[in-house]
Amino acid sequence: MGVDPGSRMTGYGILRFHNNQYHHITHGTINVASLPTLAQRLRVIHETLYELIETHKPRTVAIEQAFVHKNPKTALILGQARGAIIVAVGRAGLSFEEYTPRQVKQAIVGYGAAGKEQVQHMIKALLNLELEPDSDAADALGVAITHCQTGSPLAQFARRSRTRKSSFRGMKIDDR
Amino acid sequence: MGVDPGSRMTGYGILRFHNNQYHHITHGTINVASLPTLAQRLRVIHETLYELIETHKPRTVAIEQAFVHKNPKTALILGQARGAIIVAVGRAGLSFEEYTPRQVKQAIVGYGAAGKEQVQHMIKALLNLELEPDSDAADALGVAITHCQTGSPLAQFARRSRTRKSSFRGMKIDDR
Repeated sequence: MGVDPGSRMTGYGILRFHNNQYHHITHGTINVASLPTLAQRLRVIHETLYELIETHKPRTVAIEQAFVHKNPKTALILGQARGAIIVAVGRAGLSFEEYTPRQVKQAIVGYGAAGKEQVQHMIKALLNLELEPDSDAADALGVAITHCQTGSPLAQFARRSRTRKSSFRGMKIDDR
Repeated sequence: MGVDPGSRMTGYGILRFHNNQYHHITHGTINVASLPTLAQRLRVIHETLYELIETHKPRTVAIEQAFVHKNPKTALILGQARGAIIVAVGRAGLSFEEYTPRQVKQAIVGYGAAGKEQVQHMIKALLNLELEPDSDAADALGVAITHCQTGSPLAQFARRSRTRKSSFRGMKIDDR
Protein backbone atom coordinates (compact mmCIF):
# COMPACT_ATOMS: atom_id res chain seq x y z
CA MET A 1 0.00 0.00 0.00
CA GLY A 2 1.28 3.42 -0.91
CA VAL A 3 0.16 6.70 0.63
CA ASP A 4 0.74 10.28 -0.47
CA PRO A 5 -0.11 12.35 2.62
CA GLY A 6 -1.73 15.75 2.51
CA SER A 7 -3.71 17.85 4.95
CA ARG A 8 -6.52 18.23 2.38
CA MET A 9 -5.99 15.46 -0.17
CA THR A 10 -4.38 12.14 0.71
CA GLY A 11 -3.80 9.66 -2.10
CA TYR A 12 -3.68 5.91 -1.56
CA GLY A 13 -3.00 2.94 -3.78
CA ILE A 14 -2.94 -0.78 -3.13
CA LEU A 15 -1.28 -3.30 -5.37
CA ARG A 16 -0.03 -6.84 -5.29
CA PHE A 17 3.51 -7.56 -6.39
CA HIS A 18 3.89 -11.20 -7.37
CA ASN A 19 6.39 -12.88 -9.69
CA ASN A 20 7.80 -9.46 -10.48
CA GLN A 21 4.41 -8.35 -11.76
CA TYR A 22 2.22 -5.56 -10.44
CA HIS A 23 -1.46 -6.27 -9.93
CA HIS A 24 -3.50 -3.17 -9.29
CA ILE A 25 -6.07 -3.60 -6.53
CA THR A 26 -7.47 -0.18 -5.73
CA HIS A 27 -6.59 3.46 -5.50
CA GLY A 28 -8.25 6.70 -4.56
CA THR A 29 -8.03 10.01 -2.79
CA ILE A 30 -9.35 11.09 0.59
CA ASN A 31 -10.58 14.65 0.29
CA VAL A 32 -11.20 16.25 3.67
CA ALA A 33 -11.07 19.88 2.54
CA SER A 34 -14.79 20.43 3.16
CA LEU A 35 -14.81 19.16 6.74
CA PRO A 36 -15.07 21.97 9.27
CA THR A 37 -12.68 20.93 12.05
CA LEU A 38 -9.16 19.59 12.15
CA ALA A 39 -10.30 16.79 14.48
CA GLN A 40 -12.82 15.66 11.85
CA ARG A 41 -10.35 15.98 8.96
CA LEU A 42 -7.66 13.94 10.68
CA ARG A 43 -10.21 11.41 11.89
CA VAL A 44 -11.50 10.81 8.34
CA ILE A 45 -7.98 10.44 6.92
CA HIS A 46 -7.16 8.03 9.73
CA GLU A 47 -10.33 5.94 9.68
CA THR A 48 -10.39 5.64 5.88
CA LEU A 49 -6.83 4.35 5.76
CA TYR A 50 -7.37 2.11 8.77
CA GLU A 51 -10.42 0.51 7.12
CA LEU A 52 -8.50 0.06 3.86
CA ILE A 53 -5.69 -1.66 5.75
CA GLU A 54 -8.14 -3.89 7.62
CA THR A 55 -9.90 -4.80 4.37
CA HIS A 56 -6.91 -5.39 2.12
CA LYS A 57 -4.35 -6.39 4.74
CA PRO A 58 -1.29 -5.09 2.90
CA ARG A 59 2.01 -6.57 4.00
CA THR A 60 3.59 -3.16 4.34
CA VAL A 61 2.92 0.51 3.76
CA ALA A 62 5.08 2.95 1.84
CA ILE A 63 4.59 6.64 2.51
CA GLU A 64 5.82 9.49 0.38
CA GLN A 65 8.32 11.37 2.49
CA ALA A 66 7.58 14.94 3.34
CA PHE A 67 9.23 17.44 1.18
CA VAL A 68 10.94 19.49 3.90
CA HIS A 69 9.07 22.74 3.69
CA LYS A 70 10.76 26.02 4.33
CA ASN A 71 7.70 27.11 6.26
CA PRO A 72 7.49 25.55 9.74
CA LYS A 73 3.75 26.17 9.87
CA THR A 74 3.18 24.17 6.67
CA ALA A 75 5.45 21.44 8.03
CA LEU A 76 3.38 21.27 11.23
CA ILE A 77 0.12 20.95 9.27
CA LEU A 78 1.52 18.25 7.01
CA GLY A 79 3.00 16.53 10.08
CA GLN A 80 -0.47 16.30 11.61
CA ALA A 81 -1.84 14.54 8.52
CA ARG A 82 1.17 12.22 8.54
CA GLY A 83 0.52 11.48 12.22
CA ALA A 84 -3.08 10.48 11.43
CA ILE A 85 -1.80 8.16 8.68
CA ILE A 86 1.03 6.64 10.69
CA VAL A 87 -1.31 5.90 13.61
CA ALA A 88 -3.52 3.91 11.19
CA VAL A 89 -0.43 1.93 10.14
CA GLY A 90 0.64 1.44 13.77
CA ARG A 91 -2.84 0.41 14.96
CA ALA A 92 -2.87 -2.27 12.26
CA GLY A 93 0.46 -3.57 13.59
CA LEU A 94 2.31 -2.68 10.41
CA SER A 95 5.50 -0.81 9.79
CA PHE A 96 6.13 1.61 6.98
CA GLU A 97 8.90 2.76 4.70
CA GLU A 98 9.40 6.21 3.25
CA TYR A 99 10.49 7.35 -0.18
CA THR A 100 11.13 10.87 -1.36
CA PRO A 101 9.16 12.30 -4.29
CA ARG A 102 12.44 12.23 -6.19
CA GLN A 103 12.93 8.50 -5.53
CA VAL A 104 9.39 7.82 -6.69
CA LYS A 105 9.82 9.80 -9.90
CA GLN A 106 13.14 8.11 -10.51
CA ALA A 107 11.57 4.69 -10.02
CA ILE A 108 8.46 5.34 -12.08
CA VAL A 109 9.63 7.65 -14.84
CA GLY A 110 13.38 7.04 -14.59
CA TYR A 111 13.94 10.76 -14.02
CA GLY A 112 13.87 12.35 -10.55
CA ALA A 113 12.62 15.72 -11.75
CA ALA A 114 9.75 14.31 -13.82
CA GLY A 115 6.43 16.14 -13.88
CA LYS A 116 3.20 14.94 -12.32
CA GLU A 117 1.71 14.13 -15.72
CA GLN A 118 4.60 11.83 -16.55
CA VAL A 119 4.06 9.94 -13.29
CA GLN A 120 0.34 9.61 -13.99
CA HIS A 121 1.04 8.43 -17.53
CA MET A 122 3.56 5.81 -16.42
CA ILE A 123 1.35 4.55 -13.57
CA LYS A 124 -1.47 3.98 -16.05
CA ALA A 125 0.90 2.06 -18.33
CA LEU A 126 2.62 0.04 -15.59
CA LEU A 127 -0.64 -1.07 -13.99
CA ASN A 128 -2.68 -1.42 -17.19
CA LEU A 129 -5.25 1.05 -15.94
CA GLU A 130 -8.01 2.27 -18.21
CA LEU A 131 -7.67 5.85 -17.01
CA GLU A 132 -4.88 7.86 -15.52
CA PRO A 133 -5.33 8.11 -11.75
CA ASP A 134 -5.46 11.61 -10.39
CA SER A 135 -2.20 13.04 -9.20
CA ASP A 136 -2.39 12.13 -5.48
CA ALA A 137 -3.47 8.56 -6.16
CA ALA A 138 -0.82 8.23 -8.88
CA ASP A 139 1.84 9.35 -6.40
CA ALA A 140 0.52 6.82 -3.87
CA LEU A 141 0.65 3.99 -6.42
CA GLY A 142 4.07 5.28 -7.42
CA VAL A 143 5.42 5.04 -3.89
CA ALA A 144 3.99 1.51 -3.61
CA ILE A 145 5.77 0.50 -6.82
CA THR A 146 8.95 2.17 -5.61
CA HIS A 147 8.76 0.06 -2.47
CA CYS A 148 8.25 -3.15 -4.49
CA GLN A 149 11.26 -2.32 -6.63
CA THR A 150 13.48 -1.55 -3.68
CA GLY A 151 14.76 -4.79 -2.24
CA SER A 152 13.55 -7.03 -5.05
CA PRO A 153 16.14 -8.59 -7.41
CA LEU A 154 14.47 -6.62 -10.21
CA ALA A 155 15.21 -3.47 -8.27
CA GLN A 156 18.91 -4.16 -8.18
CA PHE A 157 18.93 -4.67 -11.92
CA ALA A 158 16.78 -1.58 -12.50
CA ARG A 159 19.13 0.56 -10.45
CA ARG A 160 22.14 -0.71 -12.34
CA SER A 161 20.47 -0.10 -15.67
CA ARG A 162 19.55 3.44 -14.65
CA THR A 163 23.14 4.30 -13.97
CA ARG A 164 23.61 3.87 -17.72
CA LYS A 165 21.49 7.02 -18.17
CA SER A 166 18.67 5.05 -19.74
CA SER A 167 16.27 7.58 -18.21
CA PHE A 168 12.80 7.00 -19.62
CA ARG A 169 13.76 3.73 -21.28
CA GLY A 170 15.02 2.42 -17.95
CA MET A 171 11.44 1.63 -17.01
CA LYS A 172 11.11 -0.87 -19.84
CA ILE A 173 12.59 -3.62 -17.73
CA ASP A 174 9.77 -3.23 -15.20
CA ASP A 175 7.13 -3.30 -17.87
CA ARG A 176 5.31 -6.53 -18.36
CA MET B 1 -8.76 17.07 29.59
CA GLY B 2 -5.56 18.89 28.80
CA VAL B 3 -2.74 17.59 26.62
CA ASP B 4 0.80 18.84 26.15
CA PRO B 5 1.98 17.13 22.95
CA GLY B 6 5.52 15.97 22.34
CA SER B 7 7.14 13.45 20.04
CA ARG B 8 8.84 11.77 23.03
CA MET B 9 6.91 12.90 26.11
CA THR B 10 3.23 13.80 26.02
CA GLY B 11 1.64 15.11 29.18
CA TYR B 12 -2.04 14.71 29.99
CA GLY B 13 -4.26 15.85 32.79
CA ILE B 14 -7.94 15.38 33.52
CA LEU B 15 -9.97 17.50 35.89
CA ARG B 16 -13.54 18.32 36.70
CA PHE B 17 -14.61 21.93 36.84
CA HIS B 18 -17.75 22.31 38.88
CA ASN B 19 -19.13 25.31 40.77
CA ASN B 20 -16.00 27.20 39.82
CA GLN B 21 -13.89 24.61 41.61
CA TYR B 22 -11.24 22.36 40.12
CA HIS B 23 -11.32 18.69 41.03
CA HIS B 24 -8.22 16.82 39.98
CA ILE B 25 -8.95 13.42 38.46
CA THR B 26 -5.71 12.14 36.98
CA HIS B 27 -2.56 13.19 35.21
CA GLY B 28 0.53 11.58 33.77
CA THR B 29 3.03 11.47 30.96
CA ILE B 30 3.29 9.14 27.99
CA ASN B 31 6.94 8.42 27.36
CA VAL B 32 7.54 6.79 24.00
CA ALA B 33 11.24 7.63 23.68
CA SER B 34 12.31 4.01 24.06
CA LEU B 35 10.06 2.60 21.34
CA PRO B 36 11.98 1.70 18.19
CA THR B 37 9.69 2.85 15.37
CA LEU B 38 7.70 5.99 14.68
CA ALA B 39 4.61 3.85 13.95
CA GLN B 40 4.86 2.34 17.44
CA ARG B 41 5.53 5.69 19.14
CA LEU B 42 2.57 7.41 17.52
CA ARG B 43 0.36 4.38 18.12
CA VAL B 44 1.12 4.38 21.86
CA ILE B 45 0.50 8.12 22.19
CA HIS B 46 -2.76 7.69 20.30
CA GLU B 47 -4.04 4.55 22.04
CA THR B 48 -3.17 5.81 25.53
CA LEU B 49 -5.05 9.07 25.02
CA TYR B 50 -7.95 7.31 23.30
CA GLU B 51 -8.32 4.90 26.24
CA LEU B 52 -8.15 7.81 28.71
CA ILE B 53 -10.89 9.61 26.79
CA GLU B 54 -13.03 6.47 26.66
CA THR B 55 -12.54 5.90 30.40
CA HIS B 56 -13.02 9.43 31.69
CA LYS B 57 -15.27 10.80 28.94
CA PRO B 58 -14.12 14.43 29.20
CA ARG B 59 -16.49 16.98 27.75
CA THR B 60 -13.75 18.62 25.77
CA VAL B 61 -10.02 18.51 25.18
CA ALA B 62 -7.59 21.42 25.37
CA ILE B 63 -4.26 21.06 23.63
CA GLU B 64 -1.22 23.20 24.14
CA GLN B 65 -0.59 24.95 20.85
CA ALA B 66 2.64 24.26 19.09
CA PHE B 67 5.29 26.79 19.63
CA VAL B 68 6.04 27.59 15.99
CA HIS B 69 9.51 26.22 15.61
CA LYS B 70 12.01 27.85 13.36
CA ASN B 71 13.07 24.42 12.20
CA PRO B 72 10.59 22.87 9.72
CA LYS B 73 11.91 19.38 10.52
CA THR B 74 11.12 19.80 14.22
CA ALA B 75 7.71 21.20 13.30
CA LEU B 76 7.01 18.14 11.13
CA ILE B 77 7.95 15.76 13.97
CA LEU B 78 5.83 17.62 16.50
CA GLY B 79 3.01 17.77 13.94
CA GLN B 80 3.03 13.99 13.70
CA ALA B 81 2.60 13.63 17.48
CA ARG B 82 -0.16 16.22 17.38
CA GLY B 83 -1.85 14.26 14.57
CA ALA B 84 -1.81 11.09 16.71
CA ILE B 85 -3.41 13.05 19.57
CA ILE B 86 -6.00 14.87 17.46
CA VAL B 87 -7.10 11.58 15.85
CA ALA B 88 -7.77 10.20 19.37
CA VAL B 89 -9.93 13.26 20.05
CA GLY B 90 -11.68 12.95 16.69
CA ARG B 91 -12.31 9.20 17.06
CA ALA B 92 -13.99 9.89 20.39
CA GLY B 93 -16.28 12.40 18.67
CA LEU B 94 -14.86 15.33 20.61
CA SER B 95 -13.58 18.68 19.52
CA PHE B 96 -10.60 20.48 20.97
CA GLU B 97 -9.40 23.95 21.76
CA GLU B 98 -5.85 25.23 21.67
CA TYR B 99 -3.99 27.57 23.97
CA THR B 100 -0.47 28.89 23.57
CA PRO B 101 2.14 28.23 26.28
CA ARG B 102 1.97 31.93 26.99
CA GLN B 103 -1.79 31.83 27.56
CA VAL B 104 -1.37 28.88 29.90
CA LYS B 105 1.36 30.59 31.92
CA GLN B 106 -0.71 33.76 32.04
CA ALA B 107 -3.74 31.81 33.29
CA ILE B 108 -1.86 29.69 35.83
CA VAL B 109 0.89 31.97 37.11
CA GLY B 110 -0.51 35.30 35.97
CA TYR B 111 2.64 35.96 33.99
CA GLY B 112 3.12 34.83 30.38
CA ALA B 113 6.86 34.38 30.63
CA ALA B 114 6.76 32.31 33.83
CA GLY B 115 9.17 29.40 34.25
CA LYS B 116 8.22 25.72 34.27
CA GLU B 117 8.79 25.47 38.02
CA GLN B 118 6.30 28.25 38.68
CA VAL B 119 3.67 26.44 36.61
CA GLN B 120 4.33 23.19 38.48
CA HIS B 121 4.14 24.98 41.82
CA MET B 122 0.86 26.72 41.00
CA ILE B 123 -0.73 23.55 39.59
CA LYS B 124 0.05 21.74 42.84
CA ALA B 125 -1.53 24.58 44.81
CA LEU B 126 -4.59 25.04 42.57
CA LEU B 127 -5.43 21.34 42.52
CA ASN B 128 -4.40 20.53 46.11
CA LEU B 129 -1.94 17.91 44.90
CA GLU B 130 0.45 16.26 47.33
CA LEU B 131 3.34 16.46 44.91
CA GLU B 132 4.20 18.71 42.02
CA PRO B 133 3.40 16.99 38.74
CA ASP B 134 6.28 16.69 36.35
CA SER B 135 6.59 19.44 33.81
CA ASP B 136 4.68 17.86 30.89
CA ALA B 137 1.76 16.78 33.08
CA ALA B 138 1.73 20.18 34.81
CA ASP B 139 1.49 21.88 31.40
CA ALA B 140 -1.35 19.53 30.47
CA LEU B 141 -3.26 20.31 33.67
CA GLY B 142 -2.43 23.96 33.06
CA VAL B 143 -3.99 23.95 29.61
CA ALA B 144 -7.08 22.21 31.03
CA ILE B 145 -7.43 24.90 33.70
CA THR B 146 -6.87 27.60 31.07
CA HIS B 147 -9.75 26.12 29.10
CA CYS B 148 -12.03 26.06 32.16
CA GLN B 149 -11.24 29.71 32.83
CA THR B 150 -11.88 30.76 29.26
CA GLY B 151 -15.58 31.09 28.70
CA SER B 152 -16.61 30.80 32.35
CA PRO B 153 -17.92 33.92 34.14
CA LEU B 154 -14.91 33.65 36.43
CA ALA B 155 -12.71 33.91 33.36
CA GLN B 156 -14.20 37.19 32.30
CA PHE B 157 -13.57 38.60 35.75
CA ALA B 158 -10.05 37.17 35.86
CA ARG B 159 -9.21 38.73 32.52
CA ARG B 160 -10.49 42.10 33.60
CA SER B 161 -8.56 41.93 36.83
CA ARG B 162 -5.38 40.97 34.98
CA THR B 163 -5.56 44.08 32.85
CA ARG B 164 -4.95 45.91 36.13
CA LYS B 165 -1.40 44.51 36.06
CA SER B 166 -2.08 42.34 39.08
CA SER B 167 0.31 39.73 37.66
CA PHE B 168 0.90 37.01 40.24
CA ARG B 169 -1.84 38.25 42.55
CA GLY B 170 -4.28 38.00 39.67
CA MET B 171 -4.47 34.28 40.34
CA LYS B 172 -5.88 34.84 43.81
CA ILE B 173 -9.38 35.11 42.45
CA ASP B 174 -9.14 31.61 41.00
CA ASP B 175 -7.79 30.17 44.20
CA ARG B 176 -10.23 28.42 46.47
